[in-house]
This record gives sequence, structure tokens and C-alpha cells, in this order.
Amino acid sequence: MITVKEIAKMCNVSPSTVSNILNGKSNMTEETKKRVLEVVEKTGYRPNFFAQGMRRQNNKCICIIAEELLQFSTPPIVEAIMDVCESKGYRSILINMSMYEKWKKTGVNLGDEKTLRENTSPALLEAQAMRADGVIYVAAHGHVLNNIPEDYGIPVVFAYGHSTLRDYKSVLIDDCGGAELLTDYLIKKGHKRIGVIAGKEENLHTVERLKGYKKILNENGIKYDENIVFFADWERKSGKEYARRLLEMGVNTIWCMNDLMAAGAYDAITEAGLAVGKDISVFGFDNREVSEFMTPMLSTCELPLKKMGETCAELMIKEIEDEDFRKQPAYKTMVPCELVLRDSVR
Amino acid sequence: MITVKEIAKMCNVSPSTVSNILNGKSNMTEETKKRVLEVVEKTGYRPNFFAQGMRRQNNKCICIIAEELLQFSTPPIVEAIMDVCESKGYRSILINMSMYEKWKKTGVNLGDEKTLRENTSPALLEAQAMRADGVIYVAAHGHVLNNIPEDYGIPVVFAYGHSTLRDYKSVLIDDCGGAELLTDYLIKKGHKRIGVIAGKEENLHTVERLKGYKKILNENGIKYDENIVFFADWERKSGKEYARRLLEMGVNTIWCMNDLMAAGAYDAITEAGLAVGKDISVFGFDNREVSEFMTPMLSTCELPLKKMGETCAELMIKEIEDEDFRKQPAYKTMVPCELVLRDSVR
Repeated sequence: MITVKEIAKMCNVSPSTVSNILNGKSNMTEETKKRVLEVVEKTGYRPNFFAQGMRRQNNKCICIIAEELLQFSTPPIVEAIMDVCESKGYRSILINMSMYEKWKKTGVNLGDEKTLRENTSPALLEAQAMRADGVIYVAAHGHVLNNIPEDYGIPVVFAYGHSTLRDYKSVLIDDCGGAELLTDYLIKKGHKRIGVIAGKEENLHTVERLKGYKKILNENGIKYDENIVFFADWERKSGKEYARRLLEMGVNTIWCMNDLMAAGAYDAITEAGLAVGKDISVFGFDNREVSEFMTPMLSTCELPLKKMGETCAELMIKEIEDEDFRKQPAYKTMVPCELVLRDSVR
Repeated sequence: MITVKEIAKMCNVSPSTVSNILNGKSNMTEETKKRVLEVVEKTGYRPNFFAQGMRRQNNKCICIIAEELLQFSTPPIVEAIMDVCESKGYRSILINMSMYEKWKKTGVNLGDEKTLRENTSPALLEAQAMRADGVIYVAAHGHVLNNIPEDYGIPVVFAYGHSTLRDYKSVLIDDCGGAELLTDYLIKKGHKRIGVIAGKEENLHTVERLKGYKKILNENGIKYDENIVFFADWERKSGKEYARRLLEMGVNTIWCMNDLMAAGAYDAITEAGLAVGKDISVFGFDNREVSEFMTPMLSTCELPLKKMGETCAELMIKEIEDEDFRKQPAYKTMVPCELVLRDSVR
């Protein structure tokens, strides 16, 4: 790419003259200005933003590091972050760690800190290299993140997972609150015996959602029955398997902790010759696109992904621009979920 | 962030001594080396990759510019590009233009070159600023792209749309071939009168897919009947509307040019008291996630998004590394589609 120096040489002026003209300073003749601008035009020279960023203190650039772009929750969070950045005059770029395939290949779970650190490290260097003013780390699902060193030197905000380190603020989904809402809804509709197909037992989402479910049962004087709570793996197939077992136990209201497992529950119910929304009620979680394409359409609890992304970006910009705020100890922001009621509950 | 200069000052040595130590040169005493490295460690200093990039010719960085991250096709294409980049030692980062919301808000269609150029321009500058070795431009859907100047100075490859400029290679979906495959399949299954719910009439995907459909009809001696071909807007609602009209006309095989409109066709068929896959056959296009969650599961034509992303990345790296290849005139690479047969066709 052509440089200021080369342009200066072509115009027979000093590099600083070229710079001054490009920066709109006018202490040179019109003739020189015209000559330089013509060469700039002709060569297609564009100022080196990199170098400009190095000179400026604030680069007005936020780097988003995503664990997995293919996870359904990631694009809406990222898009919302980017929209806020744009409206506030920040550029934003994304680095994707593509952890999903790596996890699948290696069977390593997200809790494996070493693998996570190894994968995060190049992305962190990259963010430093582009002199990002801040890093927003978007987890693929809720887990504890200790993969960014406390002396990293750039403000960090976590989305969807949280750090236990004192320096970093996190934005999380209020899983517990979402579960409270839906359990309350089901009980008010007359469902007292609600079978649960949960996620993996140690998963943070599972733990929080179960907490909300138990709380509302308790408030309504319904005893928690661990026999109708199954821990599954978030996949459609296991949803089907455990729904079949719940049906055998005479349970006719099933809450699945994600929409994919709810689709599996539909499969089991149809296979048993029963009708969802008539004989058996099903409730999901996530409000993924697929929930609207199931028959009948699935009632579910919407993840506030857009709101989450917006909150992250606003926090991040405040961190960058407000030093006092930056020094405040870390805290978690919980973004509430909303119910989306369709046709799968009687 | 701390600089080499500041470290030098803290250690009471010259900046070049610090640089030499960091670059592994050893013409200084062990004591100096130890002292400097301790300070480096303590301050968390990391070399400025930006500046290093400026010194190097090849920055080993590919910039992906996406029109719209929220379009369902974008994340798989981007992920595949990034995977190839990683395996070949290139870093990759994403800039998202978020055009989707802008189009919706302004009602501007993709053909509006001015709006597109205005939105592309900052992203192009950004890619130059980070001294990317190449730019892969990922369109949200197939359209003609003249939004990157020919004198841009960095190699460009287009995915999903194509440029009419001579310098840029494009990777496209073989829409025509996909339509041929599915029309052939339907005819072989005995469906001679295939109603079509197409996309917008001027849309490139529509044009190509219709070409494939007509070709196979012709080869089978079936006359093309424009009365059973409707141009719709890719949305579920219009799929329902036109399916209703096809049903009224006694058509019982419906090909929808995307899966969302096929879901609309399901809606119309169910409302008419008929059964998909028994009374009426439906075929989709895209193989979006939702197609597996419809009842019955939709037979459709899969977009080769992963393959497309891989092809782009391979082309791009060849452009960067092989000057002769770069100088070859532009051409289009067509990636073939595959049928995914499920339960919606009798």
C-alpha cells in the first residue's frame, strides 16, 4: 500500500506537508494542495488507521471475542453489541474461537480451564494488537470463566458466563427468574405435577432454573418430587427418551429446559398417540426459531439475547469512558426473561 | 498500555536494548536481561502486534466483511472460513455491517448501490487499517455487488453474491443445479404438475432456480405453466397465501423456494384439513434448522454453506500467496447443493 512518504516524494514536498494537507491544515499554497490531493486521489492512498489508532489514546474500537459463533445465542448477542457500538461511535470487530467443534472433537467440557485458556490467549493478544479499548467476551453458554488474566490491561465485560475475578463485570440471563415465571404460569393453569427434563446437572443454567422451579413449588405448597426430574444433555433425542419415561409415570405436564428437548418430548408424545397441548402440556426454554415451527407452536421462555448484548455494550462503553465506574468492583447484571405463550399448554 | 519506552525508562536502559531482549538477541549482560524481563513480567507488557504487522509484509490476517450476521446463512459460512484460516495459519476477524435492520427500517432493497456503498466503505477502510492481507465479503443473499472499488489494493473474494468487476472472484451456490435435482426427484416420484412458490421475481436465486426447474420440465416433455408459479417474498405468511391458491387450483405438489414459505404451505394445507406428505407433497429449499422441526419433517435442498465458506477461504489464501493466481481474471465458482429427503413428499 502506498505511504505518505511515497506521496511526498511524488509531489516533491515533505511528508509533513502531505499530512497537513490531509488533516485539513492550510498553511501552504493552493497549488501545492491541489497537486498533492490529485496524487492522493490517483494513488488511492488512504490514511493508515492503524497508525492513527496508535497515536490516539482512545481507538474507539471494541473487540468481541465469541466462544462459538455457531451457537444459536451468539449472533443475536453480537449483533446487539455491534448496534450499540455503532450508535455510540465505536467500531466493533469479532474474533470467533470456534470452540464448539473443538469441544465436540476432544470431548473436553467447558469446565476444562486449561483448554479454554489456551484458546483464549491468541484472541486476547489479537485484541491488544488492534489496540481495542475494551473486550466483550461472549460465552457459548453459562459457565465460570477465569480465562482472562486480571492484569490484562484492557477493560473486559463478560456476556452469558461470568468471571469470578474481581475486575470483570458480567451480564447474565436471569435463569432463576425465568423458571419462576413459567412454573407460576403452569401452576395457575392448574398443572400441579410438572415433570422436568433438565440440562446437565452441573450446568449453571440447570442449577439456576431448578432453583426457580423449586421456589415456586414451595410457595404453592407443592412438594418437590425428584422422581419426575431428569437430567439430560440438551439434545432432542434425550428429550424424547425422558418424555417417554414421564408419560409412563402418568405425568402429563412436561417442562423441558430447552426447546430442542421439547421437540423430543413432542416426538415421544406423538409416538404414544397423544396430542401436545390437549392430552399433554409441554413448555420449553430459549424461544429458538424452531419453537414457532413445531406443531402445535411451543410455549416457551425467551432468552433476552438482544437486551443482553445491548447491556454489555453499554457497560463496556461506560468502563472505557468513566474511570470511576471502571474501578468499581465487579458485579453481575441479570437480564430478565419473558414468557412467550403459544399452543402447547392446555 | 505500557510501552517499550516506559519499560526502558524503568530499567534505565535504552528502548532498543528492551527490544533486543524481547526479540531474543543476547548482546547484553545476563543481569540486564533479567532486570528487563522482570519489569516486562510485572507490567504485563506485550509487544504491539499492530506495529509488528506494519513492519511485516504479510500480516497473516484475513478480514471477513458480512452484510448481516443475523441472516441464517452467514454464521456457517463465516465459521467455515475461519476454520480454514486457522488451519492455514491465518488469523481472521469479522466486521458485520448489520444491513438487515437497516434494510427493514429504510425499505431500501439490496439493489440500491448507493446505500450499499456507503455502508461498505467504513468496513473497507477498517480492513485496510488492520492491514488485512485479504477481504472475504459475505453477502446476505445473492445480489450483484459493485461496492468494492477495483483499485482497493487488497485481494477480495465474494461469497454468496458476485461482483461484475473483473478483479474479484466469487463463490456462489449452484441454485440452478439444486432446482434441477429436486425437480427431477419430484418428477421421478410421479409428480408432473409442480406448483412453485418462488422468491421475488428479480432476485438472483429466484431466477436461477426457476431456470433449473424449467430445464428439467422441458427434458421431461412437461410444458411450463406460468399459472402455477407465484412470486412471493420469502416469508411464511406469503407461502401460506399462495399455497391456498394452489390448493384451490387443484395442485397437489408444491415446491417452495425456501423452507419458511414451505412452513406457510404446511399452514394452508393443515387449515384445509389435508395432510402434508399424504394428500399434498411439499418440497423446500435451504435446509434451515426449522425444516427438521416441522411435522412431517420437510424434504428440502441443502445450501452448501460450509463448503462455500471453505472454498472462499482457500481461494483467498491462494490469492494472497500466489501472485500469478491473483492476476487471473475473475471467475465464479459454483458450489453444488444436495437434496435432503425426509417425509413431506408422497
